[in-house]
Amino acid sequence: MEPRGIHHLGVVVDDLDEAVASYERLLGAQLEHRELVPDQGVEAASLRVGSGRVELLASLGEETPVGKFLAKRGPGMHHVAYEVDEQPRRGLFGLEVAFVHPDSMHGVLAEIVSSG
Amino acid sequence: MEPRGIHHLGVVVDDLDEAVASYERLLGAQLEHRELVPDQGVEAASLRVGSGRVELLASLGEETPVGKFLAKRGPGMHHVAYEVDEQPRRGLFGLEVAFVHPDSMHGVLAEIVSSG
Repeated sequence: MEPRGIHHLGVVVDDLDEAVASYERLLGAQLEHRELVPDQGVEAASLRVGSGRVELLASLGEETPVGKFLAKRGPGMHHVAYEVDEQPRRGLFGLEVAFVHPDSMHGVLAEIVSSG
Repeated sequence: MEPRGIHHLGVVVDDLDEAVASYERLLGAQLEHRELVPDQGVEAASLRVGSGRVELLASLGEETPVGKFLAKRGPGMHHVAYEVDEQPRRGLFGLEVAFVHPDSMHGVLAEIVSSG
């Protein structure tokens, strides 16, 4: 696998508006995209932090995957997305994604993204 | 604050050798630096994943900050380091660092790095 780099960090938040404002104020982040994704149960905001990217994820309900994550662990890091020269299924913002389970990645859910 | 990007991700692991091997095998990562830092109670390995960087942190004892993190939360994401045009105190690998508390960053400990 030929890695290109870190595509984005996925962060679960309680309040999307507040979180976007915090990233803008504390890190100089710039909102690039915001989208409701009902079939995944999230509202997502993609922010640029310089050359980096953070995807803030707010739950659309307690029974969604992100809602369950939030109830169990509270707000915080959800996944790291690495960009590589590969593919699979459609994810947020039209990107092709796959996942590596946290058990294989020492506790970190890795999302493998190909924009190619 | 003018952000440059994500400098590295800090990940706490149980077994540094195994974790380095996993990142190499699963993500095509390349080890760039490995260092014992007794006064911070860690052994750290810095890996490149394409243009990205991951810092794997193993505890040197149960009473160290990373040892306590591991006992409480298990292996996983510890912090996100953002590179900016600022400074403060000396961190690993000779970089200047500061921290933003997780309460301000919606559950994510942010490390602010200046290499300048």
